[in-house]
Amino acid sequence: EYEELLKEGHPADLAEIIEKIDFDLALILYENLSDEIGAEVLMELDDDLRAKILADYTGKEIAQELIDNLDSDDAADLINELDEVQRREVLENIEDQKQAMDIARLLVYPEGTAGSLMGTEMIKVKDHWNVLECVREMRKQAEEVERVHAIYVVNGQNKLLGTLSLKKLLTTPTRTPISEVYSHKVQYVEVNTEAEEVANTMQKYDLVVMPVVDPLGHLVGRITIDDVVDLIRDEAKEDYNLASGLTDEVEADDTLWSITRARLPWLLIGLFGGLLAASVIGRYESDIDIIPKMAFFIPLIAAMGGNVGVQSSAIIVQGLASQSLADNTTLNRLVKELGVALVNGLILSILVIGASLFLGYGMKLALTVSVALFSVIVVAALIGTFVPLVLNKYKIDPALATGPFITTLNDIIGLFLYFQIGRLILGL
Amino acid sequence: EYEELLKEGHPADLAEIIEKIDFDLALILYENLSDEIGAEVLMELDDDLRAKILADYTGKEIAQELIDNLDSDDAADLINELDEVQRREVLENIEDQKQAMDIARLLVYPEGTAGSLMGTEMIKVKDHWNVLECVREMRKQAEEVERVHAIYVVNGQNKLLGTLSLKKLLTTPTRTPISEVYSHKVQYVEVNTEAEEVANTMQKYDLVVMPVVDPLGHLVGRITIDDVVDLIRDEAKEDYNLASGLTDEVEADDTLWSITRARLPWLLIGLFGGLLAASVIGRYESDIDIIPKMAFFIPLIAAMGGNVGVQSSAIIVQGLASQSLADNTTLNRLVKELGVALVNGLILSILVIGASLFLGYGMKLALTVSVALFSVIVVAALIGTFVPLVLNKYKIDPALATGPFITTLNDIIGLFLYFQIGRLILGL
Ligand SMILES: [Mg+2]
Ligand SMILES: [Mg+2]
Ligand SMILES: [Mg+2]
Ligand SMILES: [Mg+2]
Ligand SMILES: [Mg+2]
Ligand SMILES: [Mg+2]
Ligand SMILES: [Mg+2]
Ligand SMILES: [Mg+2]
Ligand SMILES: [Mg+2]
Ligand SMILES: [Mg+2]
Ligand SMILES: [Mg+2]
Ligand SMILES: [Mg+2]
Ligand SMILES: [Mg+2]
Repeated sequence: EYEELLKEGHPADLAEIIEKIDFDLALILYENLSDEIGAEVLMELDDDLRAKILADYTGKEIAQELIDNLDSDDAADLINELDEVQRREVLENIEDQKQAMDIARLLVYPEGTAGSLMGTEMIKVKDHWNVLECVREMRKQAEEVERVHAIYVVNGQNKLLGTLSLKKLLTTPTRTPISEVYSHKVQYVEVNTEAEEVANTMQKYDLVVMPVVDPLGHLVGRITIDDVVDLIRDEAKEDYNLASGLTDEVEADDTLWSITRARLPWLLIGLFGGLLAASVIGRYESDIDIIPKMAFFIPLIAAMGGNVGVQSSAIIVQGLASQSLADNTTLNRLVKELGVALVNGLILSILVIGASLFLGYGMKLALTVSVALFSVIVVAALIGTFVPLVLNKYKIDPALATGPFITTLNDIIGLFLYFQIGRLILGL
Repeated sequence: EYEELLKEGHPADLAEIIEKIDFDLALILYENLSDEIGAEVLMELDDDLRAKILADYTGKEIAQELIDNLDSDDAADLINELDEVQRREVLENIEDQKQAMDIARLLVYPEGTAGSLMGTEMIKVKDHWNVLECVREMRKQAEEVERVHAIYVVNGQNKLLGTLSLKKLLTTPTRTPISEVYSHKVQYVEVNTEAEEVANTMQKYDLVVMPVVDPLGHLVGRITIDDVVDLIRDEAKEDYNLASGLTDEVEADDTLWSITRARLPWLLIGLFGGLLAASVIGRYESDIDIIPKMAFFIPLIAAMGGNVGVQSSAIIVQGLASQSLADNTTLNRLVKELGVALVNGLILSILVIGASLFLGYGMKLALTVSVALFSVIVVAALIGTFVPLVLNKYKIDPALATGPFITTLNDIIGLFLYFQIGRLILGL
């Protein structure tokens, strides 16, 4: 059964097993795999575990046993995880010169760009070929391409012209020039396009693979949907974690210590904010001394400021990610958010004044809470909108401004507003 | 240019334009599209807009102009959006009996299952055919299948046996029986499999299309990755919205009113929670009267309870979605979460006692805050873990327990703990 698993198991399943068992045992299992399966299993593993396994490899072994058995995009990712010295050693030991050059070229694209997602394996035909030449050439290229999802047509200068369907190819007389039968409609992205835009484009047009061109329009690679699915999941998780006050790609089955580590930074922000809030309230100690009931509504003001701020920032973060905000200016957003805040603020402050009166807190306190709530909602909405937009402008991940950060900030501002308004209305 | 757009435009682009312009103008543009493009554009539109356009259609028109031009999965989705009467009328007016039956069969699968994601268009060959028969039959079937991503092999009873690669088919002598050349390795799901598991399986094995079988193993459909990408995005958005206190699929470019509506329910929960918190604190009015400084730490306690609760519930919600929690019991989770909470609680309560003393709040208050913080962190973590697990057990979306709900609940419990501990330590 063990033998069969080694031979027949899917790399993704084998990787899952290796992740779960003891490292020593995992290493034995891994070393019993063929080079081909082993390379794929390695790429499915967690970064840390992969680094641990790779520590025993020389650059030459990586080049010969692993790189040869990986798609160029995975090969580039793997090499990018190595240190400078190892990286050079690996590149020098790749026997196939063309492959070495292909991979070296992939290494230059920064993470988060189309270039960093693409591979070079694809079927490429020239527009001046005829169908027969095309099929002959395809047979050659198909060796290195597992599944044919698309055939790209380029001109003599390697400029992307369009695509050719397999169906067309199989039903056209062999002497017909490709230029007469290919489709000029093709969705593509540039190497520097942001990864998120790549995902949006592939989703929008239901693509399984998409060609990538350089700034001059030359076909330099292709991106496959499986890597984009991984990207979409990772990005969604990252945003969700940040909004929930978690750092890293923490998972429920991580160790106790790594879960603790993923949470502590945000809790420290919360703690610092809480101490700051304490000193803000401290400035109004005399007011509480006179009207202790002022203290009753501290949680309400703090919570509502936090909630509104999180809502606003969440809408901005998602809008930026889906690029539906592209044609909106910051000013437009702030105006709209102000409108929403005014409506919600009005409804909620009317409700709260009614409830406070009904609960017998007295007119002046009810009015204070109501006016403060209205102000807090408006200010929190503007802060929740403004901060992620500014971060985004300076190329900082706007998702950092969600969750604990925005709630803590709004807590403090909200409390300040509440007590200041209290002074005015209650005449303290 | 307008003419060209109508003829050459991609349905996804046309749909984007139609979404943006006035309804009257949109209707004119839509009606100028060919039936084929029009049907695809319609499926790319927002539900509301689609319903508005469909209101003018008779069941017969829907059957003849739309259904015929849609994949069976999209056709079923469209019919599911109609009311009972229209639905029947459409089904009765589909001319092709086999197509009508295929679609009718798809209608029975509840949303969120593999069945609701699948279509029936696929290339299916029998294991007792030879390569020649196979190619001949494929030509026939390929008419209705746009792109060939996989060829499924079934036995005489339509049981899924495996897959056949195009490469194998093209390189094998024509008299060879299929049974000798197909691959027995095939990833599939059952019709009742949860949609999220479908997504996980397709992501794990890098699939572009996946076959679906009934409980007896008969091949009944296939799911394509584009629909799964849409699903992954929608699910991620839903969870993110719920964690941020937003209902519906609200987007930054929605109208002011729909953004307001998406936010108000959660703000009402927050408001209600705030009033409840006020009455909890009210029970300790005398304590605040004696030691007004007690009020200073209300935001800290409330914020930390909220933050810890959100962190815990976020980890559970994500763990449930990725099914990495599958082999864990509730008790295991609670124990682990308790461990994390104890570590974080200890670190933070030591920090807070130090800070409070340093800031001159006095030993007894510092001790109160510290012990209360520790208790709040532990309780909030347990609640944040327990509530989503319980919801999930009762088939309620655990994501409902994230965001404002959990923070509000923890606010109240946290304040109660804080003042109760205050009474003990401060001897009030
Ligand atoms: Mg890469
Ligand atoms: Mg799509
Ligand atoms: Mg689609
Ligand atoms: Mg890849
Ligand atoms: Mg991001
Ligand atoms: Mg990332
Ligand atoms: Mg707050
Ligand atoms: Mg469906
Ligand atoms: Mg994958
Ligand atoms: Mg992969
Ligand atoms: Mg579909
Ligand atoms: Mg969900
Ligand atoms: Mg709170």
